[in-house]
Amino acid sequence: MIIIMNPEANEEDIISLSGLLQEKGFKVSKLKEGKNTIIHLTTKENKPITFDFKALPGVEKCIPLAKQERLLDKKVDEKTLKVRVGKEVIGGNKIVMMAGPCAVESESQIMQIARSIKEIGATFLRGGAYKPRTSPYSFQGLELEGLKLLRQAADEYNLKVVSEVTSEKYLDNCLKYCDMLQIGARNMQNFELLKAVGKTNTAVLLKRSPGAKIEEWLGAAEYIIAEGNRNIVLCERGINTFENATRYTLDISAVPIVKSKTSLPIIVDPSHASGNSALIHSLSLASLAAGADGLLIEAHNDPKFAISDARQQLTPKEYEKLFLEAKNVSKSIGRKI
Amino acid sequence: MIIIMNPEANEEDIISLSGLLQEKGFKVSKLKEGKNTIIHLTTKENKPITFDFKALPGVEKCIPLAKQERLLDKKVDEKTLKVRVGKEVIGGNKIVMMAGPCAVESESQIMQIARSIKEIGATFLRGGAYKPRTSPYSFQGLELEGLKLLRQAADEYNLKVVSEVTSEKYLDNCLKYCDMLQIGARNMQNFELLKAVGKTNTAVLLKRSPGAKIEEWLGAAEYIIAEGNRNIVLCERGINTFENATRYTLDISAVPIVKSKTSLPIIVDPSHASGNSALIHSLSLASLAAGADGLLIEAHNDPKFAISDARQQLTPKEYEKLFLEAKNVSKSIGRKI
Amino acid sequence: MIIIMNPEANEEDIISLSGLLQEKGFKVSKLKEGKNTIIHLTTKENKPITFDFKALPGVEKCIPLAKQERLLDKKVDEKTLKVRVGKEVIGGNKIVMMAGPCAVESESQIMQIARSIKEIGATFLRGGAYKPRTSPYSFQGLELEGLKLLRQAADEYNLKVVSEVTSEKYLDNCLKYCDMLQIGARNMQNFELLKAVGKTNTAVLLKRSPGAKIEEWLGAAEYIIAEGNRNIVLCERGINTFENATRYTLDISAVPIVKSKTSLPIIVDPSHASGNSALIHSLSLASLAAGADGLLIEAHNDPKFAISDARQQLTPKEYEKLFLEAKNVSKSIGRKI
Amino acid sequence: MIIIMNPEANEEDIISLSGLLQEKGFKVSKLKEGKNTIIHLTTKENKPITFDFKALPGVEKCIPLAKQERLLDKKVDEKTLKVRVGKEVIGGNKIVMMAGPCAVESESQIMQIARSIKEIGATFLRGGAYKPRTSPYSFQGLELEGLKLLRQAADEYNLKVVSEVTSEKYLDNCLKYCDMLQIGARNMQNFELLKAVGKTNTAVLLKRSPGAKIEEWLGAAEYIIAEGNRNIVLCERGINTFENATRYTLDISAVPIVKSKTSLPIIVDPSHASGNSALIHSLSLASLAAGADGLLIEAHNDPKFAISDARQQLTPKEYEKLFLEAKNVSKSIGRKI
Repeated sequence: MIIIMNPEANEEDIISLSGLLQEKGFKVSKLKEGKNTIIHLTTKENKPITFDFKALPGVEKCIPLAKQERLLDKKVDEKTLKVRVGKEVIGGNKIVMMAGPCAVESESQIMQIARSIKEIGATFLRGGAYKPRTSPYSFQGLELEGLKLLRQAADEYNLKVVSEVTSEKYLDNCLKYCDMLQIGARNMQNFELLKAVGKTNTAVLLKRSPGAKIEEWLGAAEYIIAEGNRNIVLCERGINTFENATRYTLDISAVPIVKSKTSLPIIVDPSHASGNSALIHSLSLASLAAGADGLLIEAHNDPKFAISDARQQLTPKEYEKLFLEAKNVSKSIGRKI
Repeated sequence: MIIIMNPEANEEDIISLSGLLQEKGFKVSKLKEGKNTIIHLTTKENKPITFDFKALPGVEKCIPLAKQERLLDKKVDEKTLKVRVGKEVIGGNKIVMMAGPCAVESESQIMQIARSIKEIGATFLRGGAYKPRTSPYSFQGLELEGLKLLRQAADEYNLKVVSEVTSEKYLDNCLKYCDMLQIGARNMQNFELLKAVGKTNTAVLLKRSPGAKIEEWLGAAEYIIAEGNRNIVLCERGINTFENATRYTLDISAVPIVKSKTSLPIIVDPSHASGNSALIHSLSLASLAAGADGLLIEAHNDPKFAISDARQQLTPKEYEKLFLEAKNVSKSIGRKI
Repeated sequence: MIIIMNPEANEEDIISLSGLLQEKGFKVSKLKEGKNTIIHLTTKENKPITFDFKALPGVEKCIPLAKQERLLDKKVDEKTLKVRVGKEVIGGNKIVMMAGPCAVESESQIMQIARSIKEIGATFLRGGAYKPRTSPYSFQGLELEGLKLLRQAADEYNLKVVSEVTSEKYLDNCLKYCDMLQIGARNMQNFELLKAVGKTNTAVLLKRSPGAKIEEWLGAAEYIIAEGNRNIVLCERGINTFENATRYTLDISAVPIVKSKTSLPIIVDPSHASGNSALIHSLSLASLAAGADGLLIEAHNDPKFAISDARQQLTPKEYEKLFLEAKNVSKSIGRKI
Repeated sequence: MIIIMNPEANEEDIISLSGLLQEKGFKVSKLKEGKNTIIHLTTKENKPITFDFKALPGVEKCIPLAKQERLLDKKVDEKTLKVRVGKEVIGGNKIVMMAGPCAVESESQIMQIARSIKEIGATFLRGGAYKPRTSPYSFQGLELEGLKLLRQAADEYNLKVVSEVTSEKYLDNCLKYCDMLQIGARNMQNFELLKAVGKTNTAVLLKRSPGAKIEEWLGAAEYIIAEGNRNIVLCERGINTFENATRYTLDISAVPIVKSKTSLPIIVDPSHASGNSALIHSLSLASLAAGADGLLIEAHNDPKFAISDARQQLTPKEYEKLFLEAKNVSKSIGRKI
């Protein structure tokens, strides 16, 4: 830690502070230059110092030096980690395409959608079985039955299943029927749930909370990794801002920032970010151009009568159009779908 | 639901839409006036309609009419609900004062603080035993040991204990040692945890997530109430905004809004909202003047060497000064501490 | 306007409201269905009604119907407007590339940069001569001298000049030396300045204020158009949000939204949006993929010793790399630079 | 400035950086401790260094030390500046009450309101004559005629006039008819306008832009002071956030922050902040308890038929009720209205 003293601090303040810090076991050294005094502080074991001495007389600012290293931090020579889900690979040169309805509603619905997205080229089927909703009176999902339908549809059409787990108590069910576990935005800092999925080997899709800074999101990922599971894919899905022309504001900058800081793959969910099917096309292409490793798109065979999120789900026809153009943009930056 | 047709919509669109809606079982009536057509839609059971017909040809806007009623909604003749914790009452004319450290650190620390706040006049001791932290490598709390120390200190000085429960699996421990359960900001939409505390009779302090709209926060409260537990106190603790002069931005308007919409008591936590002990005094008085039913304040015997949130904890002396002025302001609006 | 009555409103409220409205000269018609009453209201001239009857007894909601038409609104059959600046065209199939330093600092600086960006392929030279700065003690630009240097450099290398006008009193100078006038973010709602540039024929680059909703930004553009000048290009440059990993948050969704609502071209300034040269590359490609009509990039021959915005300016070498990849992405979506 | 080197930086980086900096004329000294190297940098004249060396090899962070001093900064021994408008004093022990309609609409309207607020106890009449509006087609105010009506009403009832000046070209008119000039939120960073009012002696009410950080707002105030006019009163009126239960979010923390950093008085405008007359009462009391030096309230004799901002204007009766309770709260904190 570096302590910058106030230029008005007197000699007494500096001596008394140094004394106190040495007494508490810190190693202290000083740089004095004109009116400025800088104090350098370390612990014997060189551990990060988290105390805050701002309130002490004469102190202007405390700047931590030793940062807590994280397992997800990018090392200079490291390429982006690849996450494997069966034969599918996320990260690296290939773009992953995940699609499906907001919620599993019925067997015929999920079978129909699964067939459509498979024909178009997607490899992951997404669909909510356990649905966290703002109101307890909104449709809460088909739960276990929904998971079974997802599995059935995925097996029929040779797709992988990604679905949300909302509680440690549903984890076994999800592990049984899903290939990849989604941690939803609302549970991004449900640390006990993060630790529980961290104890499995199953790939995890960790959505960003619309209220979370990137650093908080990475902290959540680290909770999973710290338990031993490195198979994490991050998913940007829009943040809360004052702009109300979209449901959330897609934070496109999160893509290159995550890439520069970590070795984890990141995909984008433009459906939730915009809440508006008319924008999904442009936002999808933008995400890929920004470097995203894939797209999570809501698609529904009959969006206007969807039980939830009607306005943000694409028809199979719209999804097909998007898929084709996504291929072109991916190619232009040297990647492929 | 009301559907407002686009003034450019032609007769055919209107007929075809009406047909489709009737076919789906809705009761349809129309108002035509010049170029404007308004379609009124109900279900037989007069249930809220959640479909979205915005995508249909000629539709300009869909406006839901029947709102889902909630148990927490204020009824015209109803006074604010009073929440009882032993002999202590929250809501009504009296202001509740809760104080204590961010985290329980040791027996001597918590005993010392408990004595101080008791002498000053607080009635609830707060302190984190299970500590959700952004990083898995930060201090995670003394856990069960912390709960026991809280109980011991509270019993010694005749205080009530409020502490955070972060997972269903710690609920039994918390119920054993606490008088009131806190749901923290990060778990505000951990719906399974909300349902679990909803199944108890113990009073709940539900903090607002810094990324949540008031309506989302009330939805979370309704999850608890829907399970049968109406002993809920809401706690505003600042929201995420672009202003970085404070850690969060205290949304003081939340106090009168919650009062006007619901019958639940609401208190304010100016410590987390500001992250700056110099502001807590002003924000506390403002909260009471705005109508808050109490204050949750972080107080620590030696803040600069606190293990967490050093900068936002008051010394006993500062807390005492605040307490006295809070009494004056409360009196000026006809309430008392 | 539609007035939706509260289901609890009694017959008396409805009659009394209708009477009052008719008395005030409105044409009133009603739709009654079960407990719901909808009142439809027009003026004789079918003008937008801006009064707000929310406070009247029994009223639940007021929904304006007739929207004020704007000159910038997209008409169904209209393509994006093309803005001409001499032989350069903005909008249509071609992508415009604008580059240059944050501020004009000296003759040698601006000549050097102009040559670099011309060689790389840019067609517009940007550079601040009048510099609005947060502090009155920061460098305020070379003013008139800066404009002359910009003109000199642009003439030498056959580039167009775009530079900011900060006051009506500098308008004549700017008109004399610039090909395109920039209205900066801070003056986006300086309506008298907007009206003044609206009275010229010169093309205008209207930057979005980081605190403005898209609708407020379009309102600002309409102020210019209403005075007769349709040569407007919008520029997205990031909005204020809680995320502090970037200086602002690039609102990439603004691109397709502006495209869908208006006939104006829109370009993106990823330099100000991110405040971080490492992100400009990704954000530029994303903007083009989202449909932007061009890029405004800060480039400087020696960024680290730039007088302002050091951290967000590209070196010529970095700009060249970006330019090449921007070409590829443009091509993949059927456009060209 | 302090430059913190990356712990991985090698000796060569450090030597090369020191050399470059000395060559550029900086005075350089170093502190080396284990892997950490801290470089302290000053100019000969000890001026703030604004360059950014982050991009240089081995540099981790640059921390400016010498801060640009501002004329508005609070000096340790200084009390809050008092701003005088005729016999009225803003700042100090007394609370100033300003009230009036959003816009001056007619002679009878403004005379009626002036009488009401005078009887209740207000001392300043506010009302828009030049009205900056989001759309060019909304009511733009009565302009010069509006100013004359304000003056007439104020003279009749012995009130002071505060009204907004939107352009340098209207400054003379405003100086002739107003006692205090308002700079509106949209023009908060119209620096040429700020300089122009800075050249007068007339008191200025500087509203915060809803998109501006407190530091940007203070920078705007400094533009006025730097020209010689210290008669500035700041006005907090809500910031843009994701919460849409209110029109803006009142940043109540701005009150104690401004008090701690500057010697300027600050008042609050709860009408614009909330956009909801039902909240104004609570927010007003909260503002006073937080330490505000006054309130700017929108009051209208017939709000529902007001030409603008219908929903946020109080009736005289509501204003009277507020006034009485504001007196009580002021008294409780040792101040008076």
